[in-house]
Amino acid sequence: MSFVVFINGLVMVFFAALMGVVALLFPDTASLFEVPALLFGFLGGALALATSPDATGLRPLHTFLMTSSVWMVAALCGAGPLYLFDLSFVDAFFEAMSGITTTGSTVMSGLDATPRGIILWRAMLQAVGGVGFIVTGIALLPILKVGGMQLFRSESSEQGGKELRNATMFASATLQIYFALIFLCGLLYLIGGMSPFDAVTHAMTTLSTGGYSGYDASFGHFDSAFLQWVCTAFMLAGALPFAWYIRGVRRGVWQSEQVSAMLTTLALTISGLSLWLMMVRGETLFDALRLVAFNVVSIVTTTGYATTDYTLWGPFAVAAFFVLTAVGGATGSTAGGAKAMRWLVAGRALIAQIRKSYAPHRVTFVKYEGRPVAPDALSGVIAFFVLYSATFGVMAILLSFFGQDMSTAISGSLTALANVGPGVGDIIGPAGNFATLNTPSKLVLTFGMYLGRLEMATVYALFAPLFWRELVSSR
Amino acid sequence: MSFVVFINGLVMVFFAALMGVVALLFPDTASLFEVPALLFGFLGGALALATSPDATGLRPLHTFLMTSSVWMVAALCGAGPLYLFDLSFVDAFFEAMSGITTTGSTVMSGLDATPRGIILWRAMLQAVGGVGFIVTGIALLPILKVGGMQLFRSESSEQGGKELRNATMFASATLQIYFALIFLCGLLYLIGGMSPFDAVTHAMTTLSTGGYSGYDASFGHFDSAFLQWVCTAFMLAGALPFAWYIRGVRRGVWQSEQVSAMLTTLALTISGLSLWLMMVRGETLFDALRLVAFNVVSIVTTTGYATTDYTLWGPFAVAAFFVLTAVGGATGSTAGGAKAMRWLVAGRALIAQIRKSYAPHRVTFVKYEGRPVAPDALSGVIAFFVLYSATFGVMAILLSFFGQDMSTAISGSLTALANVGPGVGDIIGPAGNFATLNTPSKLVLTFGMYLGRLEMATVYALFAPLFWRELVSSR
Repeated sequence: MSFVVFINGLVMVFFAALMGVVALLFPDTASLFEVPALLFGFLGGALALATSPDATGLRPLHTFLMTSSVWMVAALCGAGPLYLFDLSFVDAFFEAMSGITTTGSTVMSGLDATPRGIILWRAMLQAVGGVGFIVTGIALLPILKVGGMQLFRSESSEQGGKELRNATMFASATLQIYFALIFLCGLLYLIGGMSPFDAVTHAMTTLSTGGYSGYDASFGHFDSAFLQWVCTAFMLAGALPFAWYIRGVRRGVWQSEQVSAMLTTLALTISGLSLWLMMVRGETLFDALRLVAFNVVSIVTTTGYATTDYTLWGPFAVAAFFVLTAVGGATGSTAGGAKAMRWLVAGRALIAQIRKSYAPHRVTFVKYEGRPVAPDALSGVIAFFVLYSATFGVMAILLSFFGQDMSTAISGSLTALANVGPGVGDIIGPAGNFATLNTPSKLVLTFGMYLGRLEMATVYALFAPLFWRELVSSR
Repeated sequence: MSFVVFINGLVMVFFAALMGVVALLFPDTASLFEVPALLFGFLGGALALATSPDATGLRPLHTFLMTSSVWMVAALCGAGPLYLFDLSFVDAFFEAMSGITTTGSTVMSGLDATPRGIILWRAMLQAVGGVGFIVTGIALLPILKVGGMQLFRSESSEQGGKELRNATMFASATLQIYFALIFLCGLLYLIGGMSPFDAVTHAMTTLSTGGYSGYDASFGHFDSAFLQWVCTAFMLAGALPFAWYIRGVRRGVWQSEQVSAMLTTLALTISGLSLWLMMVRGETLFDALRLVAFNVVSIVTTTGYATTDYTLWGPFAVAAFFVLTAVGGATGSTAGGAKAMRWLVAGRALIAQIRKSYAPHRVTFVKYEGRPVAPDALSGVIAFFVLYSATFGVMAILLSFFGQDMSTAISGSLTALANVGPGVGDIIGPAGNFATLNTPSKLVLTFGMYLGRLEMATVYALFAPLFWRELVSSR
């Protein structure tokens, strides 16, 4: 337990340091950052010093508590400067949670005129949240066996174990790749004509698949086909498994079922929707491809940038983008959603199940990356989908209860839970804003983003009385 | 294979006989029924005579084919008189499928002025469909192990096996209870002031949880609190497991987890919504209770009668009724939907899964009706939910593609798949009608009702190449 508090203390100190950096860079808004920097710096420092950095004896129970609390503390830290800036506490907490979970839904408008310190802070929250989630996904969720993530453990560490002897090396490789991709993306943005500030902040929110932009028009602000294609490529890069990069770079092995599945799905969806857009809206091939590729990749990778209001393309586009919201990126990336790995495993389990019913004498395996999936991993994947649907349903009902219309309630819950960003409908669609929602609705969505980022089970476990009994008895 | 054709022949002869009865009772519309009676009578008779009634050697593969084909043939037979009456083929097929699957969505308007022969035919389709589904659910789906229905086999036959030595006796007991309930319901309807014709047809569509009414205003036509409470009670009676009645009557054992779960859910939902309705709409307690109980029971039991347009109660009511659409009745009843048994098993599996993640040394079982659920039954239940969600999603996308708005697309797919009847929104809501939808949308919904009634896997198996290879190699 002491270690859990220690880590939370460190997280506060880390965010205090980031606030210090922003305060130094943008003196005009320094006061917004100095106060929370001091507050969280002292509080975090005190907590860290008062507790023990000794991680021995850390049990899964503690890891659950640590993971859940760290993300909550990070959102609270992130909310500090936003609250001092202009926002109500609920709005600041929503915005910070949306940032740290790399969702990208925003309650802020007039972004073009917002102080650049605040814009940088929002981008930083996403950059930190993105790398935080890669680490959570690679190191913590597999230990917790949340949603079948133990499958991913074998993928990333058993196979990768030969070349990467320990977790530190793996984490450092992840950080290197992440920042190299951000650097490369920012460089191409610069070449494409962005200002250095725009290039840096947008590269941060592209690779983290976060989708915060410094402009109300989102990425549509940059009316450049080159920039949009660069962004499309790097949103995708942020949603591919980072273990796959490491293995690819070190061993030259690029085969990955998750990556193939994602690329195939994207290729099919983009071609289909582009053809449809050419037919019903008379777009040229290249315009259609660019429009569709950008917005589809933005939603599937759970980034949430928009270049156009695709909900004006008609009911079919609305439905298609709504479904894409549920897809998500790859495990071990910055992306949210259900993840390609789970869709693959669940789909194969289903086919095996149907086959078994009419051909019971055939031996059927569910395989993933060439190996049979263990029963507990399979049931973890299934549990994920059940929790996902149930949480989605409960959130939608709550939002309706708080007066939201059906489109807003349904797409709002899904976009929050999948950490995507925009919903559909007039209010929270790609051209809309979450600012006008009432306070209870914002709180539902904030909690939804938190649940989605922690793949639900991590948080739900904390609500079980048995969890606390086990925790107390384990001391 | 020969036996499969034989059964289909018998089904045609049976429907021809029913058409004969309607032709005799209502001479004004006799011609609509005589022609298809002769057609299906001869065709069915010829098929039955040309094939073998020998069921030995019937393998699960054949049972799949038999179940799927019988329901399709029944819908085609049912469509005959409707097509001759006034409807296009697609409309007649939609209406007959909606009847035989006890869905209750209708494309017909001006029902008050429609010949009574047609109204009786629609009620008959639902009455036959209702009992047909009880038999399918008790005898066929458990053999096919569709959606974990093997669980239900143990519930209905192993435990019930002592007092009911064979399937014939069980089927006869089911029929007796079904018709006794219809008789009792009709009698109470008569006492409540319905005409004999209305009492008979509405009793048939109440117990079959079908929901076809002879009036455009649905059950709202009868402005009587007594009739509405009678209907509420008998819709519920139709959605409770028939094996439970048999066991209860014969052995006095009324304990059932499915029944308790359904009653608890209904009690909570009805109290909650009634309170809410009293608060926001100022209804009196008794009016609120009657309105809410009728409409909630109608949707949860997948009947689909309406006494009022509850979608005018505001977004929360829309959401609540939309969710209730997904709930469904009990297995082994006439009701559709996901069924209480599956929700119970899936919910417990989920809790077990979460517990196991933080307390791996605890032994956790998933139990149902006091016994551990076998792994293959559990995976069947899960597969059902995955298929259910996937089918729902694909149908909603197709409906959007064919130009339906989001409310119509989403609620239409769910109401068809769960065999409920009304959706939400202006077009297909409780005050609306499916007539104005375009042809492709109607076909999607027709196929959805068929898929839902056969719990999907029964139909999907037929699309697997392996199925046909197995079938050919099994001869």
